[in-house]
Amino acid sequence: MKSCVGIIGLGSMGASLARNLARHGYKVSVYNRTFEKAEEFVKEAPEEGFALCRTLEDLASSLPAPRVVLSVITAGAPTRAAIEELSKYLAPGDLVVDCANSFYKDSMDLGKEMEEKGILFADCGVSGGKMGALMGPSMMFGGSEKAWELCGGVIKDACAKTKGGEPCAARLGPVGSGHFVKMVHNGIEYALMGAIAEIYGLFRREGFSAEECSQIFKKWDEGDLHGYLIEITGKVLSHRDAKTQKPFVDVLKDEARMNGTGTWTVLSAMELGAGAPSVGEAVFERIVSSEEDLRGAFKPSPAPEISLDSSDAMQALYLSSAVIYSEGFDVLEAASKKYGWGLDYSQIARIWEEGCIIRSDFLPKISEAFKHDPSLPSLLSSPIFEKIEEENGQALRRVVARAVLGAAPCAVLSSSLSYFDELTHPLPLNLLAAQRDYFGAHGYERADEPGFFHTEWEEDGREVRRE
Amino acid sequence: MKSCVGIIGLGSMGASLARNLARHGYKVSVYNRTFEKAEEFVKEAPEEGFALCRTLEDLASSLPAPRVVLSVITAGAPTRAAIEELSKYLAPGDLVVDCANSFYKDSMDLGKEMEEKGILFADCGVSGGKMGALMGPSMMFGGSEKAWELCGGVIKDACAKTKGGEPCAARLGPVGSGHFVKMVHNGIEYALMGAIAEIYGLFRREGFSAEECSQIFKKWDEGDLHGYLIEITGKVLSHRDAKTQKPFVDVLKDEARMNGTGTWTVLSAMELGAGAPSVGEAVFERIVSSEEDLRGAFKPSPAPEISLDSSDAMQALYLSSAVIYSEGFDVLEAASKKYGWGLDYSQIARIWEEGCIIRSDFLPKISEAFKHDPSLPSLLSSPIFEKIEEENGQALRRVVARAVLGAAPCAVLSSSLSYFDELTHPLPLNLLAAQRDYFGAHGYERADEPGFFHTEWEEDGREVRRE
Repeated sequence: MKSCVGIIGLGSMGASLARNLARHGYKVSVYNRTFEKAEEFVKEAPEEGFALCRTLEDLASSLPAPRVVLSVITAGAPTRAAIEELSKYLAPGDLVVDCANSFYKDSMDLGKEMEEKGILFADCGVSGGKMGALMGPSMMFGGSEKAWELCGGVIKDACAKTKGGEPCAARLGPVGSGHFVKMVHNGIEYALMGAIAEIYGLFRREGFSAEECSQIFKKWDEGDLHGYLIEITGKVLSHRDAKTQKPFVDVLKDEARMNGTGTWTVLSAMELGAGAPSVGEAVFERIVSSEEDLRGAFKPSPAPEISLDSSDAMQALYLSSAVIYSEGFDVLEAASKKYGWGLDYSQIARIWEEGCIIRSDFLPKISEAFKHDPSLPSLLSSPIFEKIEEENGQALRRVVARAVLGAAPCAVLSSSLSYFDELTHPLPLNLLAAQRDYFGAHGYERADEPGFFHTEWEEDGREVRRE
Repeated sequence: MKSCVGIIGLGSMGASLARNLARHGYKVSVYNRTFEKAEEFVKEAPEEGFALCRTLEDLASSLPAPRVVLSVITAGAPTRAAIEELSKYLAPGDLVVDCANSFYKDSMDLGKEMEEKGILFADCGVSGGKMGALMGPSMMFGGSEKAWELCGGVIKDACAKTKGGEPCAARLGPVGSGHFVKMVHNGIEYALMGAIAEIYGLFRREGFSAEECSQIFKKWDEGDLHGYLIEITGKVLSHRDAKTQKPFVDVLKDEARMNGTGTWTVLSAMELGAGAPSVGEAVFERIVSSEEDLRGAFKPSPAPEISLDSSDAMQALYLSSAVIYSEGFDVLEAASKKYGWGLDYSQIARIWEEGCIIRSDFLPKISEAFKHDPSLPSLLSSPIFEKIEEENGQALRRVVARAVLGAAPCAVLSSSLSYFDELTHPLPLNLLAAQRDYFGAHGYERADEPGFFHTEWEEDGREVRRE
């Protein structure tokens, strides 16, 4: 029997993680606020080796010191309340790992609070859904070296492994970095899903059935686009509804819900001064899909038919995906700089290679690009991605142009393209600097000499130096 | 002599507002943290009637009860500190009006704090820049009826007037609504400026000089696009740099700074579940313009030439602007619903008709549309805007397609077009609902029966009802 680990919270993720650890030979103390759910879990789990705990105090007593407890509880107030309560029964040197989708600033706050009590705290993003948590998720750990020493072995046992056999888990930096990286993972996921939905929408506008679209995505999954989201797109599109015998997607309400991580990614990017416009568009697309009143205000007008070259569509999605990953790494870099985390982007790409929702054949390429040049200012400027841009740029342009002319929404595809174009063929935003000085006296910088200036627009048009 | 008003904070906005009130015959008690600045202001202002105050206590003593003090101090901590300090010298029934660009939630908090002291508090957004504040800005007031009774007269004297002679100021709702509406005004401003910059960028790519572009915008300002931002675009583009004799914009650093209101608009829209994607793109464009390292990573590649039909460009900017205003009103409606503000959108459009930065010939149309149907679910669904869409839709599609094919960034133009298309030709986001259920067991709704469902994807593919 290996050492003991505690898990609090037996929702779908917590239960799967507990089973995962039991499969790896751990004795797992389990606790759930509703005790019956914990009882049922232990009774029904096919694995052995659980210690059923009625209270958090029981859980703490069941574990040898230093204790390691994974908290897998709804993010926000419930997570904070549970960990604060649990900490009453812990001793200095014990470790709590928050495995929820918590906002990274909340984790940093909670970490400080625990530190004052002498309790170690870490934040660990877990991606892969219910099945991933069971079979091996990608695990993004933020915490001290000491915390990682205590639980790194457990996490490396539980997580997915790359094709090369390396664990899809690592200590990425101090507390906060784990949830930040997981948040950005989810932001990338939002944008990739948006781009896929837009391409799917274009095929439907061409008259293809869900089943025909499924075949296309299944074929793409065998090529360069190979990845989990493409794979499950192929799967769900071929699924038939048992009640109606119609394609499953066609009987669903046309509405995409979300949790907060996409919004947080956009907010964090803006706060940190990094670009993540495709994530922003993906979040807004989901919001619009939920606005029944707003959408109901428009008479459905006949949609123009669109003819799409399937190979163009594949290439367009390929380049758009590359830009989306790149936006994610731009956000990571901004945070790493601001907080001094020293994130290793190659390592992050590696732990995303398996187990997580955004795993795809891009990740080994990204890992390679950052390994080759750890201070790469943008993934898109690496030789391997420059080649992708050259080979697929025209196709993405053609697909977006066709969508735009055919009244097919393509906010994520076109946003990713514009982001790329802004880097390679900048907008002349000196106009904005001039306008802002005109109406708000905000001042401006000149390209030809240092300093900060203002023009007296409403007076004699003279330029004055401000600093 | 009219009644007395106090102004604290004599930066460019505060000083202009103080002069504005003096011109209207008010006796204005002025205070600035650095007393010398206040002295200098009184000495140099061409108007009479200022009472120079060395301390906040002096200011309070100089005013008859009930006192009315406008605070025009940098938003955030400085505003809070100044108002808290000032409140020590005020008596129950006195009124403080925060005229900074404060975040609306901060204003709501500060309002509650003042209320506990018996002091009236209101938040008033002031738009129009330095000149607007002097000659008559647009003023968006949030506060109680009682607060409005105390200072509505002052504000209506100071503000701009519509062509019909109505004041561009009104009590819009309780505390918070003033700064919220001003924030959305600024969000619209960001997006309009982004769309203008993109169109300008397209003309430059066609080979036009700044002066030639100026002529185009000046001509447009005489037509349907007539508005302040178009007007000043024409003006700044024809301005020549005295040092180099080059066009002024061409000597500026290609970087657009910003304050926080654009970011807040995006964050608030996402929080409230309303769409403001064009504002998001505009904020991200400015961010990218400031990322020197990132932009520097790309070898400037020769930009393909773009040929643009000038009348198409005008129509494209016209429709894009219409969608941008509409996004703003969508955000206002979401807030009004959530907070029970009962905002009058026709009134808001009216007070934006003159004085503020986004004033244009759109505003009377918007005011009319909401007057005709106050419960309009979307501005874009009003007959007057449907006509705009019909007349300009193809032009916007052509311009965006041309930009996209020619590698010219057009994130705001294309985002506004996609937002419009999402409303009229929805994306099939049922795919996302299916994917989310597949990987995260998040559940879904069906279009054909009520309830919440989940499919056991990894087991027998059976559908189970969740609630």
